Amino acid sequence: MAAVLTLPELIAALGGDLLGAAESLAATRIARIATLEDADAESIAFLANPRYAAQLASTQAGCVIVAPAMAEAAVARSARSAPAAGAATLVTPDPYLYFARLTQWWAARGRSGSVASIHPSAFVDPSARLGEGVSVGPFAVIEAGAVIGAGAVIGPHCVVERAASVGAGTRLAPHVTVCHGCSIGARCIIHSGAVIGADGFGFAPNQGQWEKIEQLGAAVIGNDVEIGAQTCIDRGALGNTVIEDGVKLDNLIQIAHNVHIGAHTAMAACSGVAGSTRIGKHCMIGGSANIVGHITIADHVFVSACTFVSRSISKPGQYTGVFPMDENANWEKNAATLRQLHAMRDRLRALEKKS
Amino acid sequence: MAAVLTLPELIAALGGDLLGAAESLAATRIARIATLEDADAESIAFLANPRYAAQLASTQAGCVIVAPAMAEAAVARSARSAPAAGAATLVTPDPYLYFARLTQWWAARGRSGSVASIHPSAFVDPSARLGEGVSVGPFAVIEAGAVIGAGAVIGPHCVVERAASVGAGTRLAPHVTVCHGCSIGARCIIHSGAVIGADGFGFAPNQGQWEKIEQLGAAVIGNDVEIGAQTCIDRGALGNTVIEDGVKLDNLIQIAHNVHIGAHTAMAACSGVAGSTRIGKHCMIGGSANIVGHITIADHVFVSACTFVSRSISKPGQYTGVFPMDENANWEKNAATLRQLHAMRDRLRALEKKS
Amino acid sequence: MAAVLTLPELIAALGGDLLGAAESLAATRIARIATLEDADAESIAFLANPRYAAQLASTQAGCVIVAPAMAEAAVARSARSAPAAGAATLVTPDPYLYFARLTQWWAARGRSGSVASIHPSAFVDPSARLGEGVSVGPFAVIEAGAVIGAGAVIGPHCVVERAASVGAGTRLAPHVTVCHGCSIGARCIIHSGAVIGADGFGFAPNQGQWEKIEQLGAAVIGNDVEIGAQTCIDRGALGNTVIEDGVKLDNLIQIAHNVHIGAHTAMAACSGVAGSTRIGKHCMIGGSANIVGHITIADHVFVSACTFVSRSISKPGQYTGVFPMDENANWEKNAATLRQLHAMRDRLRALEKKS
Repeated sequence: MAAVLTLPELIAALGGDLLGAAESLAATRIARIATLEDADAESIAFLANPRYAAQLASTQAGCVIVAPAMAEAAVARSARSAPAAGAATLVTPDPYLYFARLTQWWAARGRSGSVASIHPSAFVDPSARLGEGVSVGPFAVIEAGAVIGAGAVIGPHCVVERAASVGAGTRLAPHVTVCHGCSIGARCIIHSGAVIGADGFGFAPNQGQWEKIEQLGAAVIGNDVEIGAQTCIDRGALGNTVIEDGVKLDNLIQIAHNVHIGAHTAMAACSGVAGSTRIGKHCMIGGSANIVGHITIADHVFVSACTFVSRSISKPGQYTGVFPMDENANWEKNAATLRQLHAMRDRLRALEKKS
Repeated sequence: MAAVLTLPELIAALGGDLLGAAESLAATRIARIATLEDADAESIAFLANPRYAAQLASTQAGCVIVAPAMAEAAVARSARSAPAAGAATLVTPDPYLYFARLTQWWAARGRSGSVASIHPSAFVDPSARLGEGVSVGPFAVIEAGAVIGAGAVIGPHCVVERAASVGAGTRLAPHVTVCHGCSIGARCIIHSGAVIGADGFGFAPNQGQWEKIEQLGAAVIGNDVEIGAQTCIDRGALGNTVIEDGVKLDNLIQIAHNVHIGAHTAMAACSGVAGSTRIGKHCMIGGSANIVGHITIADHVFVSACTFVSRSISKPGQYTGVFPMDENANWEKNAATLRQLHAMRDRLRALEKKS
Repeated sequence: MAAVLTLPELIAALGGDLLGAAESLAATRIARIATLEDADAESIAFLANPRYAAQLASTQAGCVIVAPAMAEAAVARSARSAPAAGAATLVTPDPYLYFARLTQWWAARGRSGSVASIHPSAFVDPSARLGEGVSVGPFAVIEAGAVIGAGAVIGPHCVVERAASVGAGTRLAPHVTVCHGCSIGARCIIHSGAVIGADGFGFAPNQGQWEKIEQLGAAVIGNDVEIGAQTCIDRGALGNTVIEDGVKLDNLIQIAHNVHIGAHTAMAACSGVAGSTRIGKHCMIGGSANIVGHITIADHVFVSACTFVSRSISKPGQYTGVFPMDENANWEKNAATLRQLHAMRDRLRALEKKS
């Protein structure tokens, strides 16, 4: 998708200092981004985690992105080892961040050929308002009163229901549903199948049956939010469900009605948050973690994978609750004993009293 | 969406007794439904949970729905406190149920403008039979031999496969799939992305590989069932998967082949039931709970969130199995010890024998 | 869907030995496949699990498929009991495998009427290449440069993005998304809503915010793979996410970027695998099990349902980690004590020293 690039082009676009013989730097051609391990002479690779420093010596990468502390080691490799004598070193304060921006630049080059257009098969209600440069894919549906910001991309088969809004520069992958009256901010990415604003799960008991509580609020998504495939963000019952700016949600996540997620919090796949819970800013929620309803979680909390958060957390830190994996036979014995744990404590106390 | 209403209109529609000065009752205009905390003078709020009784004194709501026992306190607030002197009190035996019906009435008013129609872009096979007043959204597909009951709403991009049926008054949100030969009862609500009747997960081992067992049964959904976004209800292998009347399923739930769920059971998001298990009536299954296959669960069982039900349950009651969350450092110590628990029990026994 | 068949037809197609009176064998008509329990005189049933052997005596099935060891018992039932005197017995070395093939044959007969065609409403880019006998359903989208193998079936509302490929004989149910550049092998079945190749979840931290790492790899699916409804297989960050031949994935599964799953491994619903983990061949992963990122799991490993695999597994065998379910009151006592477990161990040690 992306053509070959030269190191001077790269430096001009993203910065960084190049070390290496001038003539060979000019000659180096980069055809792909790769890990140190998989790289070849036409690859650019990066070293961010010191754990992988040993790979510097053996990588075949034509150019390696490193932090200043690793510059010497990176230069040394090109002098003594397998890669072409001219292998380059690119020095930057934060190689992982540089790598992230490199991928962005790379992907943007791949997209640069596409022209904004409304596919003739799409159904756009005459009362919907589309900003400049909006793309709408085949069979997309944009209902009455919906508002699509400039440069937004509405993928094939997306449905933006009545009076919903999608911010400028936001991209919806195929099969996204944005329910009536919900809003998504600018520069968001919403992956395939995500459902923004389905009804929250609310019922009043009535003589053994359930009466539906219609969900009259909305789901309100901030700017620069990414939402994974199949993730569900329910609309609020009365007030709104709110996802603040910069939140990143992985695939298959459930956000219940009236949840509030603070800015720049990230949640891994298959996690879930029950109704009306408030999560702080800059939190990290592990995969398959679940958070009970009606609680509050402070900023900068890290919930481990598969943990069930059953009460409010007021202090930053890491919280965990998961049964340790074991060979099944061992687990069986320990699990059986666990059911007698309280009794064991009493027996221990009795012994202590005696002794 | 919904215009302003007056209290006499509300009482005429839903019943209840109004307390307050007659002239001000007539003047009160309700523009929204809100929580006690968020309410303003144009809001109607409700008090269902005694835990929130203290909010009665401070709410700004123009009208509060309360049970008879709270009527005096509710009337007192309007005499002494912040809301306009004419703040009204609506007395009803079950405020939460009243609230539920109020939301239904409110939402129905918002929908009342819509007229049933078959969108010209929809593909409806000539052999499909549609009842009176059916709505079919843009790009919906209704295949050969499908039957859609009177007044049903098939959302944009839904697919109702061959010989499937959707009951009268049922609403499918966008992107719902109803697989061939499956049936959904009357007055159901199926949210975006739900898949009714995909193949169950069945394979016979054959020399280290898997031979598919074609799933020849169907999924059969009763009346008044609600099914959340992305929820999957697999078709049966031979017989059917059955969801009885009034069952409520949240988002991202997995119901495997040949499961049977009794009437009025409710399951929270991300829960799952493995094949051929039979769940009773009036059960409540917590979020992310999982239920093993081939077991039976009695009526009125309550499974806590994140619990794995590994055996049949014959007695009503609450059942739980989840590792308690802790600060990570504490968890690590306890989890490591847990792997020696059986040995600890033996050591405890040895001590007891000695003492 | 499938018409009545005779036993000689069945034997001709699938093999096996028929026991019973010749004249009645010819007369037996099979209208359905059923369990021993549900079978009637027009049903064919099977006995695979010895646990159900007692049902042989009471089944009403017109024909029962059994292993040689059970042939005598199966024949005896027709002599003495309820079913018509002519009830047949079909003997085969592996009744469960025979049953699987019978369902396949049955389903294929049901499908045999359908003719390959491109629905006129589908959008197929002129640069896409479709093999012979490809079917494309209503409103499907096949983008530029996509390749669809001979005999593949692309269901209604599927989206095959640019430069993606779908192998010969593969079937996509409605609403499947195959993202740009991803590939699916031959003879696969992909169920509704599955998303192949959405972006992996990758971000670099940058002063409290997240910088997107564009996901430049693809998802590569082998031959004979089945993928359940709503299951997500993310594309790789740099290299590819790889699902080898014969893998079977149930519904609502999350496979993160750069995961590698070995041939003929099966994963039950709601399970998840975090980034860059490598799972061996012939593994079985239980429902709702989760596997941490960056680890390696050997061949022939069986992970129990709801288990969190937090470290590499180098030995075949069964591994488990799940809190045993209990009545809530008991659980509460044991869970509370669990938080003191490490302290209990110390107290136990102290007692042991004293004694």
